[in-house]
This record gives sequence, C-alpha cells and structure tokens, in this order.
Amino acid sequence: MKIVECVPNFSEGRRKEVVDAIVSEILSVEGVRLLDREMDPDHNRSVITFIGGPEGVKEAAFRATKKAAELIDMNKHRGEHPRIGATDVIPFVPIEGVSMEECVEIARDVGRRIGEELQIPVYLYEEAATRPDRRDLANIRRGQYEGLKEEIETNPERKPDFGPAKMHPTAGATAVGARMPLIAFNVNLRTTDIEIAKKIARAVRFRNGGFRYVKAMGFEIKERGMVQVSMNLTNYEKTPIYRVFELIKAEAERYGVAIAGSEIIGLVPMRALVDVASFYLRLEGFDPSQVLESKIREVL
Amino acid sequence: MKIVECVPNFSEGRRKEVVDAIVSEILSVEGVRLLDREMDPDHNRSVITFIGGPEGVKEAAFRATKKAAELIDMNKHRGEHPRIGATDVIPFVPIEGVSMEECVEIARDVGRRIGEELQIPVYLYEEAATRPDRRDLANIRRGQYEGLKEEIETNPERKPDFGPAKMHPTAGATAVGARMPLIAFNVNLRTTDIEIAKKIARAVRFRNGGFRYVKAMGFEIKERGMVQVSMNLTNYEKTPIYRVFELIKAEAERYGVAIAGSEIIGLVPMRALVDVASFYLRLEGFDPSQVLESKIREVL
Repeated sequence: MKIVECVPNFSEGRRKEVVDAIVSEILSVEGVRLLDREMDPDHNRSVITFIGGPEGVKEAAFRATKKAAELIDMNKHRGEHPRIGATDVIPFVPIEGVSMEECVEIARDVGRRIGEELQIPVYLYEEAATRPDRRDLANIRRGQYEGLKEEIETNPERKPDFGPAKMHPTAGATAVGARMPLIAFNVNLRTTDIEIAKKIARAVRFRNGGFRYVKAMGFEIKERGMVQVSMNLTNYEKTPIYRVFELIKAEAERYGVAIAGSEIIGLVPMRALVDVASFYLRLEGFDPSQVLESKIREVL
Repeated sequence: MKIVECVPNFSEGRRKEVVDAIVSEILSVEGVRLLDREMDPDHNRSVITFIGGPEGVKEAAFRATKKAAELIDMNKHRGEHPRIGATDVIPFVPIEGVSMEECVEIARDVGRRIGEELQIPVYLYEEAATRPDRRDLANIRRGQYEGLKEEIETNPERKPDFGPAKMHPTAGATAVGARMPLIAFNVNLRTTDIEIAKKIARAVRFRNGGFRYVKAMGFEIKERGMVQVSMNLTNYEKTPIYRVFELIKAEAERYGVAIAGSEIIGLVPMRALVDVASFYLRLEGFDPSQVLESKIREVL
C-alpha cells in the first residue's frame, strides 16, 4: 500500500469557516484521510495534515489550493509567520511504499497543475527543487508576499518553476516540495539563563556548524523557570534523535546544567523511536518488522 | 478493532506435514492471520503465532487442538522441552481493543470446549488460573506428560479445570491461559566467564529476588567468545526493558565487564520500545498515539 503525507500551510489562522471549507475540499477526494489540523491566530496560519495514495493526495492538494485562492486575499493578510501566498507551502512526504523520488514527481505534477490551471506562480523546493538555492524555503520566501510581488516580474532570479511570472491577484505564489517527515523535538534545561539555550542551539544546528539536519533556537519557558532548545529535525535517518540529544547533554554539562526533560511535538515516525531504543539498548540486528504492530499491519 | 494474539505450542517439531495440517486448520477460520511459525527439531516442538478477533481465535485454537489430537501421539513423543500434551499450551494475548479480562474469558471458553468436546483435560494458567499455584506453567507441567499421566486420576491436586481427570489417549493434557506479550531479550557480555552471566541472571530474575516479570539464564555463546544473559520479560509494562538493561549494565560493571550488545528475538510491542526511547530521552508527556504509524492506522 502506498501512503503519502501532505502538510499544506494556508495563510488563514483566524476564520474557522475558511479552514473548514479547505478541509472539506481535501476530504472530498476518495481515500484521503485527515491526520491533523492546527490553526494559529498569531501567525494567522493553519497547517493541515492528510494522507492518501499518490493520486489522491495530488488531487486533494490541488482542490485545497483552488479553494484557498477563492477565500483568502493576500493583499489583506497580516501575520507573524513568513508567507508568500494563500496556500503558502505544500510538502509531500513519503510514508509507506513510496520513495522520495515518487514524492518529487508528485510535487512537480501538482506544481505544474497549480501553475497552469490556477495561474499561480509555483516554486519547487527541498527535494523537488530545480536549483540548489531553492532547496531552502527561506530563500524562496525572501521578502515574503510583499517583496516577491515587487520582484517577480522583473528579476529573472525569481522566475517561478511553473505558472506565470506574476503574482496571482489574491492567492500570491505557492511553494511545492518533497521532504522527509519533520520531527519537532525540544530539550528543556534546568536553568533560567537563556544564553545557555542559545549557545547550545548554535552548537547543534546546521547553520552554525552543527548537524546537517537540525534547525534549532533557544527560548525561555518562563512559566517553568527553564530554557529550551527548540528544534526541527529534518532527516531523522541521517541525523538521529539520540545523537542530537547526546550532544545537547554534553554541551549542557559543560555549563553545569542538567536536562530536565524533552518533548516531541506532534507526530513522530516509529522508526525514529526504534532507532533511539536500538542505540541505548545496543541492539544488534534489530529489524523494524519485528515490531508487533508492523507485523500485524503487514498480515491484515 | 479487537485483536487477540494466540501462540499455541504443539509437541511436534520434526514432521512438517503435521505442522502444516495444524496451520491449515487455524487458517480455515475467517479473519484469522498467521504471524509466525517456528519448528524446533531438538525440542520436537513448534510454536504457531496467529491473530484475529475474539471469536476467530477461539475457533482457530479449538480446531488446531482437535487436529493435533488426531496427528500427535504423546505416548511416542520425545523432546527436550517440558510438555504435557499434543497441544501443550495455548496462551491468549491482548493486542488491541481487548482487555486482559476478555482474554481470560476467551481462555476459559476455549478450555471448556476442549475439555467437553475433545475429552482432553485442561488446566487454566497465568491470568486465567483458578488457583494461585496454577499461575505458573511449571507447576502444571510438573512431572511432564509421563508424570501427570500417573497422578491425574488419583491426586485431587491435579484435577483439571475442564474435561475428564484422565489423560486423553493420544493428546494428553493441555494448558490454556491468558498473558501479556512476552519479550525475548538477551544481553551479550564481553567475557568468556559463564559464571558472570549466571550471577547476573540471578540478580535480575524473579526467582532469586530480582524483577518480578523477568525469567533469566546465563549461557555461553562459544562462536563469539562471549556469554549471554538470556531473558523472557513477561510484563514489559511493569518491568520495562530499560530497567532490566540498566541493572545488567550496573552488575556487569561490578565485574569490569562491558556489554557487547543486546538482541530482541521475535516480535516486540511498539509500546515497549517507545518506553525505552521515552526513558533515555527523558520525554515528557509523550503519548503513543503520536507515533505516525499508530495515527495512520487509526484514521484508515
């Protein structure tokens, strides 16, 4: 069975009826199932997570984008999170029986259709990127909606992969890509010194010489009198959770600070946790198909 | 969805056609699926693992017992493993949407039917036991087939829970019970000193004052020049893997011996590995429903 996850982000986090309408479009496709929906009023943004087969997720992502273009006007959108369009970003994630290459194909197919049929400029990103500088979403979003609107027609650097080199009148532009599942992993430190969290974030993150697949920031958690290293692990196979955790532990020790605990926010692939157990138990030759639930799914 | 696992052991590990015939009976029940089958010629014993709904596993266990009574003659059986009957033991294990209490009911229903319809004496064990001394299978199997045959008609202590107080002419007797999933967990030590493995086995196992849900023995692994603490963890919720592993690590250190690695043999419930990851990462508030694959199963 082929399962692809799709996690589109929409520039609407306040009007529930708009998000409901978008979710309805997604669920109107047979075989597509909703995993999660989150609305953030401060960011004025929502994140919808759904799964389905390759054709199902393609159709659902397209319908959602079409509906968002009808209901969201980027000229009026305000929110803290960087964004370039009504459907800001559409990542496709391989879950089961599907390769990353297939997800790249899916992203390109959907991107082409959004460009041609909806006349929304589309930028391919991460694994689906056609140019190295477009792997990183931050580069595509540079200047956000307002900045891109000024540049897109005149700067050849910002020509989209699909669709017109001109912002859609209401929907702006959209980034479509393929990526590994993200893990949101936070480590809490027994100190109120935010500088320590920031230093450790710099030690682990790619940008400052740390692990290739770690994005990290240091935050205060005032209500608990602690600080936190808040991370996105963007490839748990190549930069596993336990390696990041052990480095943070070593760095924290250097400041005489203990780790109070950690958190995984949202969903985490079973494999990522199996890898943690294997590391600490020093498991030899363990195969994820030995997990009872995997075996049961296989035979049912 | 209700899923029960059943892991009957049959006193035949050499004649493939006999085990095939038993497996066919099991799979003749609608909705029942085979997870695993193992034949051990030295023990002259086979272990079949299957799953299904409550009614399906009951019917499949009954049909398998009936077939085994036709094809296996305990008067001719020789093998290293302790046994009392053709179908030696039938444990039911709660997997999903089913409580231990329901598995106890299932064990009693199947045991009653085997006793009445097949005229095989049945002893209820572990969670299904009707007397404390029958919780432990070793007590029920005392004297094995030959010893029980001598005592069953005269010793009231050995009166079965169901069926006649008289061995079935070919099939002997059967133990039927309910239990948690077992985890076969081995830890390999970097020494050739078997005494160290034996001492550590005594430290961790219930029998000598160790953890309540651990059975352990020390073995040599000659081909690797190591020794092994070989264990069955009989309740991973109450005696979790990581706690056993950490104690073995501490005990091994006391002899200056390092842990080379560990192994999980066969299947392991996802929850047991999630608990390991949670312990070592010091995870706060992690819910197993955050595992992507669980979430996907839930929505599909």
